[in-house]
Order: sequence, then C-alpha cells, then structure tokens
Amino acid sequence: MTQQAAIALGVDLRVLAAAPDESAARVIRDVRIGHHTDLDALRAFAAGCDAVTFDHEHVPTGHVEALAAAGVAVRPGAAALVHAQDKAVMRERLGAAGVPCPAWARVASAADLKEFGEEHGWPVVLKAVRGGYDGRGVWVCDSAEQAAEVLGSGVELMAEAFVPFERELAVLVARSPHGQGVSYPVVETVQRDGICVEVIAPAPGLDPEHAARAQHIALKVATELGVTGLLAVEMFQLPGGRVVVNELAMRPHNSGHWTIEGARTSQFEQHLRAVLDLPLGSPSPVAPVAVMANVLGGADPDVFARYEHVMAHDPGVKVHFYGKEVRPGRKIGHVTALGTDLAEVRARARHAAVHLATGEYV
Amino acid sequence: MTQQAAIALGVDLRVLAAAPDESAARVIRDVRIGHHTDLDALRAFAAGCDAVTFDHEHVPTGHVEALAAAGVAVRPGAAALVHAQDKAVMRERLGAAGVPCPAWARVASAADLKEFGEEHGWPVVLKAVRGGYDGRGVWVCDSAEQAAEVLGSGVELMAEAFVPFERELAVLVARSPHGQGVSYPVVETVQRDGICVEVIAPAPGLDPEHAARAQHIALKVATELGVTGLLAVEMFQLPGGRVVVNELAMRPHNSGHWTIEGARTSQFEQHLRAVLDLPLGSPSPVAPVAVMANVLGGADPDVFARYEHVMAHDPGVKVHFYGKEVRPGRKIGHVTALGTDLAEVRARARHAAVHLATGEYV
Repeated sequence: MTQQAAIALGVDLRVLAAAPDESAARVIRDVRIGHHTDLDALRAFAAGCDAVTFDHEHVPTGHVEALAAAGVAVRPGAAALVHAQDKAVMRERLGAAGVPCPAWARVASAADLKEFGEEHGWPVVLKAVRGGYDGRGVWVCDSAEQAAEVLGSGVELMAEAFVPFERELAVLVARSPHGQGVSYPVVETVQRDGICVEVIAPAPGLDPEHAARAQHIALKVATELGVTGLLAVEMFQLPGGRVVVNELAMRPHNSGHWTIEGARTSQFEQHLRAVLDLPLGSPSPVAPVAVMANVLGGADPDVFARYEHVMAHDPGVKVHFYGKEVRPGRKIGHVTALGTDLAEVRARARHAAVHLATGEYV
Repeated sequence: MTQQAAIALGVDLRVLAAAPDESAARVIRDVRIGHHTDLDALRAFAAGCDAVTFDHEHVPTGHVEALAAAGVAVRPGAAALVHAQDKAVMRERLGAAGVPCPAWARVASAADLKEFGEEHGWPVVLKAVRGGYDGRGVWVCDSAEQAAEVLGSGVELMAEAFVPFERELAVLVARSPHGQGVSYPVVETVQRDGICVEVIAPAPGLDPEHAARAQHIALKVATELGVTGLLAVEMFQLPGGRVVVNELAMRPHNSGHWTIEGARTSQFEQHLRAVLDLPLGSPSPVAPVAVMANVLGGADPDVFARYEHVMAHDPGVKVHFYGKEVRPGRKIGHVTALGTDLAEVRARARHAAVHLATGEYV
C-alpha cells in the first residue's frame, strides 16, 4: 500500500524482503532479498537510499543504531523506535512524561505476578516485553498459577492492570523531522480474539473535548519520543471518557487503513511525506463515516472466487488484497465503505469482509 | 497509475515496455522489454496473461487480431480498438450508427480539400487518419494552399468541418464483456495548443438533460463498437447545448485522472475490473467539484525542488508524478483538488500545477 502512494509522489521504493513472494516484493521493482535481523543485509539495502523506514517493529534496535551511525537517515530513529519495540521502556517513558497509562511492573516470577495482582486486582494482563503482535504475547491471567508456563519460558515479561474499558480508540498522528505534526480523527477499533476486525472513523459519539484530548496525547507522545513518520496510539476509553494509552506503533497501521479512501491524505502517503521531511498532507476525512473491516483468512483460500458477489452487491465498497497466502485468521486484506449513516456503512463493510473470507451472506 | 489500482485488487500486472526506464516499468516487477509493434514480442508478453489491455492506441490492429486468433483475451478487441486508431473508420461507423459527428471526408489532394472547404466553409480541420495525439496530426487550415506540405507528405488524411464549439466535454464510460456499462459524470476539458491542461468534474452549469444525452451517446458508442474496458468520448458542445463527437480513446484517459481521488472508483480500477469481466465499481463523485490540472514540463527539470511549496501551501492538493523525464510541454504529472467552490478549487489546482512546472506563483 506504500507503493501505491510512492507511485503518485514519484518516490522510488526499494524493499528488503525475506523472500521474493512477500507482499511488498510482488509490487516493487527494486527488491533486495535478506532478513531484517541481518545487519549486513540491512547495510547493503540502505546504501544509496535517501531515507530508510519500516513496515514492522522487528528490526533490532542495535541494528537501527548501527545504520544511523553509518550515516543512514533511518526514520523513525532507534531512540524513538525502541518505544514501539519494548513495552517496558515505553511505559517508563510515557509515565515519566505524564501520559496516562495502566499501572504496570516488570515481573520475573510467580511471586512478582502474585504481588502485582494483590495490589492492582485480578485479572492481570501479562505481556511479553518484546515481540508481541495481534494478540500474541498477551495473556489475561486470573491467578499467578495460571501463568506458570509463560513465567517459566524465559521470556521477558511485564504485568499491567486490567483496564475495565468501554471501548478501544486509536489516534494516528504524523510528525516530520522539521517538527510538523498532524492528527487524523480519533477512530474506534473493534477487536475480536486480540485481532482488530473493524475500524470506525470517526469514533461514534465521541465527545469533542475527549477527542481533542486523545489527539493531544498522541501528538505529545510523538513529540516526547522524537517520532518521525507515523505514530499510531492505541487507547482504552474508560467510563466517563478518560483514556489511557495501550500500545504504540510507528508505521502505517491497521487503524489507519480507512484513510486510503476516507481521508484527503492516506496514511501511506503521509508516512512517506513525513520520513522524507516534506510538508504533511491534510488528514481531513472525505465522508461523514468511514468503516474499514479486515478480511481474515477462512477455510477456503480462493478469495478471488468471491470477488464477484462483493463487487456486484455493492459497487461502492473498496476491496484491498495484500497478496498474502490465505491462512485461517490471517489478515489477508481489508474493505472500506464510506457514507453518512453509521449502521448502514458498518453493515456494508461487514458484509463484504465476511463474504470474502467465508462466502457467507451476513 | 494502473499499478496503484492493481495492488488493491490483488491483480498481478505484467508490462511490455520499450525500455526499462519507462514510467510503468519503474513500478511493476514483471517487465518484459520489447516494442509494441513487434508481434513476436507481443506474443511472448501475452503468454500466460489472463487478459491483455493497452495504455495507448499504437499496437497495430493486425497484431491485436493475431493475438486474439492465438487465443489471447485482448480487451478491447481489434474490432473495437480500430475505431480509436483510425479516425476515418471511426467516423464511418459513428455516422452509420446515427451518432452526431462533424461533417467529414477523406482527402488525398489539394483539390479534395478545396472542394470540402467550399462545401463546408473555412477553416477546415485536416487530420492524419492514424497516429495523431495531443494536437499532433491535426492542422486547422484557412485554405488548401496552406496545407500543401501536409498534403504532399504521403500521410493518409481526412478533412472535418470546423465546429464553432462553446466548450469541450468528455464522457468516460466503462463496459465489460458481460455487458455491464457505467458512465462517469460529464466533465469539461480545457485545451491549450491542442493539449489538455485542465479537467473540471462535473462540467460546470451543464443542463442535466444535456448531460444525460452526452452520457447516453458515450454508452451507445461503447455498445455499438463492442468496447470492453474504458471508452473516453471527447465531444464539442455547440451553442444551445447539442454535442458532436470529436475523438475516442479506449483506455484510461487524461480526462479521467480526476477519478483517482474524485470518484468512488478510479478509472484505473474501473478499467481493470472491466477487462477482467468483474462487476464495475461506482462512478459516483466524492465531492461537489473536482479539478485536475496537468503538470507540463517547463524549462527547469527539477520538479522535486518545487514539491515543498506546493505541499505546504495546500495540504489538500494531490500530486501525481509519472516518472517521466521532463521535457518542455510534456505531460509529466497532474494535480487534483476537491472542494465545493468551483473558482476556489480551480485556483488551487492551477496554482499547484503551474508552480510545479515553472516555479511561478499564480
């Protein structure tokens, strides 16, 4: 999807891919094969690039530092990126900056977890400090005993107080090296089994003051951490409207896919503009309501066979496929619907996403 | 721009390019180098493609027929495409179908031209029957003597009555092999020196009945000629509102670039859906006014140096570069602005296009 934006901007992309059949490698001419944990591959890849950026958080922090030390313009830089890689470092930094977060502590043993649970109440959310994604690396525990296996695995862990949230929100902001910042409207994200299934833009019924406060927090985090490029701030909204920060991502993010059709500037264009230090684009929405629904792989891998119903049924829905092999539960694409009536737009997006995944008519 | 649409649809594109630095070849992985007049190159290119289509009209009709005879799904097919390649064949067919066109005749000599001028009045528009583009191959003559050089060049020619038009309109329609047809709103195109500089969607102040009539004509032409894919019908609007057909193109067309941001379905996505026989997408506009302005190459080739002003000045304007070498007068990109106030939206698009081309502030 970044390539779609790069084509319009006249930006030549080069991609580092582990294999030639990875999604991005299929649609970009300048593909370098190599692994993102191989520093030599990263150095060879970066040679000649005006800027280097990421579509995931898994490049080791030390490798990002080594590239920067060699003169590569890596955006975001290691000092910012580490906060999207290491949840404990992120919590320490956000806490010091006064950004609202759940109570948390590093835990290394059942005794640590028990102590945390007794202080903050059960359930406790146990998280891998590094490497979690789409619900992986997160365990909701009712007792320390329940977490025995994870605690004994040698993975670095932290505990967080379970937040009795009303709903989940996300704020996507962009920040450029010269310091310009913009915020997209606050969206509501709907998760199922730890995976985002739907994003509603803007978040329905959100009080304008609460929305402004959430955008302020996201821009403050971007500034405090020195982010260049996109920053997605996932938040919990508590009863009464207050928010606490859940997770950070520093790249185009699932919660911003609606911007491709739903905003003047897509998050992918915005990320390129930000990391190239160009003026940022307008984040204004183009319709009163946009709903994005993820297409999750189902039992039948032949999604293309179900194209025709979706396209004929709703000529206005936009379908995006990622060129990924279909595996049950995997995000293989998304659909976006725009309109004015929230219930109708949600139903359209859901119908298309479910049908593409399963062939069902919902 | 077709690649941008192909990425979302999950369609793998292969491109035949004369050189690896051509625009499309720079953004597509599967590039075959060869010339579009080389039948062997065309055959090798087409092997394994589900469908073959065009981004210009210059593949010889006989080659298109040969591919089809070998079982390749070429869309549009030769029998339709010839009407966008040969203006005399087009005029004969449209005349027979009762589609309004200017008076015309084949001319081979000064005497023929003089006779035509005496019957229909001067000036006369002399056209090359094949191969014209962006004002090339068109000569407005006040006398037969004035055209002596062209008449003596051996180029196959036709004469058309000069149409005293009020403005130029264009209608973009799509038609699929299974017979579905859709029309985008009628647009106004503004030409300078035979080159389109601006497209306004929808055509300002166009009477709804005249608009419906123009759309009806375009869909009728698509059906009569058996077009599959896009058909752009360029028209002259006469005083009183009546239209006559000027030119045809059977591919994504400059008059439809506004659809990338300005319509639910871009013309590039629509063309892919049509040639793959998928249901067509909604042609509905997403804003009351969209204006596209072409960026024509100026004296200074470094357009990127002028990015920053344009992006900072107007965060809502969308810039598209084609990855083409800058030559004076060449279409190297375009900009699109959306909004509600016609004069304001035109001014925004013009400002961006002129500044990118020349560095001037207009």
